[in-house]
Amino acid sequence: MSSSHTESDIEGYCLATAMRAKGASRHLLALSSDEKNRWLRLSAERIRQNVDSILSANEIDLQQAVHGGLTDAQKDRLKLDHKRILQIAAGIAEVAELPDPVNELLEESIRPSGITVRKVRVPLGVVFFIYESRPNVTADAAAIAVKSGNAIILRGGKEAANSSRAMVEILRDAASEIGIPTDAIQLIETNDRTAVGHLLQLDEFIDLVIPRGGEGLIRRVVSEAKMPVLKHYDGNCHVYVDAAADLSKALQIVENSKCQRMGVCNAMESLVVHQSIASRFLPQLQRHLQPYHIEYRADEKAMTILSDGKMASESDWSKEYLGPIMSVKVVDSLDDAIEHINRYGSKHTDAIVTENPEAARKFQREIDSSAVVLNASTRFNDGGQLGLGAEIGISTDKFHARGPCGLKELTTYKYIVVGDGHIRT
Amino acid sequence: MSSSHTESDIEGYCLATAMRAKGASRHLLALSSDEKNRWLRLSAERIRQNVDSILSANEIDLQQAVHGGLTDAQKDRLKLDHKRILQIAAGIAEVAELPDPVNELLEESIRPSGITVRKVRVPLGVVFFIYESRPNVTADAAAIAVKSGNAIILRGGKEAANSSRAMVEILRDAASEIGIPTDAIQLIETNDRTAVGHLLQLDEFIDLVIPRGGEGLIRRVVSEAKMPVLKHYDGNCHVYVDAAADLSKALQIVENSKCQRMGVCNAMESLVVHQSIASRFLPQLQRHLQPYHIEYRADEKAMTILSDGKMASESDWSKEYLGPIMSVKVVDSLDDAIEHINRYGSKHTDAIVTENPEAARKFQREIDSSAVVLNASTRFNDGGQLGLGAEIGISTDKFHARGPCGLKELTTYKYIVVGDGHIRT
Repeated sequence: MSSSHTESDIEGYCLATAMRAKGASRHLLALSSDEKNRWLRLSAERIRQNVDSILSANEIDLQQAVHGGLTDAQKDRLKLDHKRILQIAAGIAEVAELPDPVNELLEESIRPSGITVRKVRVPLGVVFFIYESRPNVTADAAAIAVKSGNAIILRGGKEAANSSRAMVEILRDAASEIGIPTDAIQLIETNDRTAVGHLLQLDEFIDLVIPRGGEGLIRRVVSEAKMPVLKHYDGNCHVYVDAAADLSKALQIVENSKCQRMGVCNAMESLVVHQSIASRFLPQLQRHLQPYHIEYRADEKAMTILSDGKMASESDWSKEYLGPIMSVKVVDSLDDAIEHINRYGSKHTDAIVTENPEAARKFQREIDSSAVVLNASTRFNDGGQLGLGAEIGISTDKFHARGPCGLKELTTYKYIVVGDGHIRT
Repeated sequence: MSSSHTESDIEGYCLATAMRAKGASRHLLALSSDEKNRWLRLSAERIRQNVDSILSANEIDLQQAVHGGLTDAQKDRLKLDHKRILQIAAGIAEVAELPDPVNELLEESIRPSGITVRKVRVPLGVVFFIYESRPNVTADAAAIAVKSGNAIILRGGKEAANSSRAMVEILRDAASEIGIPTDAIQLIETNDRTAVGHLLQLDEFIDLVIPRGGEGLIRRVVSEAKMPVLKHYDGNCHVYVDAAADLSKALQIVENSKCQRMGVCNAMESLVVHQSIASRFLPQLQRHLQPYHIEYRADEKAMTILSDGKMASESDWSKEYLGPIMSVKVVDSLDDAIEHINRYGSKHTDAIVTENPEAARKFQREIDSSAVVLNASTRFNDGGQLGLGAEIGISTDKFHARGPCGLKELTTYKYIVVGDGHIRT
């Protein structure tokens, strides 16, 4: 659809897309694991066979990006090459190897009344996925959605429109060959920005929306969506170095958490240090991290120890820098550390470094975050690292999925009650 | 608090209540199952010991109800007697016997990186419960919340204010004796109607709201709440009598589903009948249900069979009558029945009567409801009947809990990652 269409055209297009997705989702319920896996393997094969046409489509996106004023980082995310496309194909084929969550029997019992009660895992239905301009995400998301029995509506960044379309065409053609309804995988093709708003109203047909991108986009989706939203706003992740920390482990863990990849949501942003070891640990840390040219935003106590800290403002404690800056807070006790992290954190990933098992247990119990890490890097909070196999997003909510979200997190359950003429007395 | 307080007083009162609840919820994380169970048993004992003072408080509510213009049904729900109070005590003591969901290890693995990953069940935190004027619900809800490790803020109907206060005082005194923070159980004591609105904004402190009552209340909560809502609007439950139904079972199941208790959410409201058996079954059903004086709102085909049906309007197909009326739809196929139920139903409870296993499987798979019932009454969709032990509400959403909600449904999970200086490479 071109963007010259009228508002009501767009609304009708969104409604028709959502209704087709809902219709397809009912057919997905009857698919066997084998059919879904054959689709995944065939899609991977077709992607490998069509590397050249995907590259041509990507080339058009890249040429338009030159005029679109994208940053180098954005262009790098947009750009595909032979190797990246083979990685996409491999990623899809891997999803075929994961266990099928659908129809898993979660609980079963025969009740005193004589009825049999089964709690069975079932797909959510239709997932609406809004994401940034990364063509690889298109394929990953479709693979995860369909393997977990859901239809997916894809809304990628417009900069990647041609690359995403090429990918979706391959996935749909493969679906058609296997006998899976092509409407299970649909790409929103209009550039009209009202489309997202229309789709967010259609809770009768769409069961879940997953927005990925900047905080502004996510807040807009949360405020407009009538269906549940799976999301995280940011990742202000903490490492707390306890009084009983092994400081050499602490150095490695802070370095890895902060510096291995600074621009990601599970990178450390805030360091919390127990006062009893602060004057030993902080100077060691500064020397250790010298190559990274970190700026330290410190509280008063840390200021007296650090050689060139800047005074932190209140807003620093909740900031996600995504770059070479960290906040540093010195606390009097484990309780104060927990208080600080629960107050200013994102409920994403928080780590403690300690050799004291009682402190570790208390921290794990009382930190209200999706992942609580003991003596390891915050960077481990990732679907692949935690063993989910494939990930469509991370949730910092408690309702319903928390942490990295893969196949299982795109399912719900229903009760199946079986009687033989049983009535309630 | 009296209702003469100003708006900002009320706002401050709500904020203070929510903050106290959040503080208490952190302490609940450290409680053992034994401590929680001792609190439940002590509360039950204290309720039994204080029957007279609870009855006096209830008497005040009943006297005010006379002036308040309550219906007889409302007065009946409000009224306590010796037996009902003993039932309340027994209900609380039963919660002590249920397994504690907190700290359940859901998954555990050692990853190739060497880290240990545990997925552990944890409480949600703070639950805000809004409910009608039934004093027994006050005690049930507090028992379920605290047993699952959550603090609860209770907002009961104002008609039951004195009864609820008497109950909450007993529960809090018992908590205090055991060493459980009394702020884990708080009753909103102002009659100011803005209080609910203020509390619904406090997603920083309240993790979940559960509204029970009329559809108007629930819609208001859904539109205002910034935290997730666990709810169902209504229960337009169906029984579908298939071509392959055993008609004697069908008669029993329809009678029980519709007539055992007409005013409840899992009662049948809509009957769907396959055309091949409609002309045999419907007249039998009319004779069978004669004592109940049911009004039949029928489609055209059913009109030609029923002796005194009324023509159904479009709105009848989605109506929850909660009384002696049912809609009757004759369908050409199982597919049409599924289509009709998914379109007009509440996603609550829907049953099929059939001796055909293939039809049963298709219905169970494709009906998008929290409970799908084969050859049994819809009335079985209830926490007690399904084996949850205690129930705080029913959800027709898929996210996060579905169907009857007990202890487990008031929990979430977190990932605990354990390393020994592990970093990501």
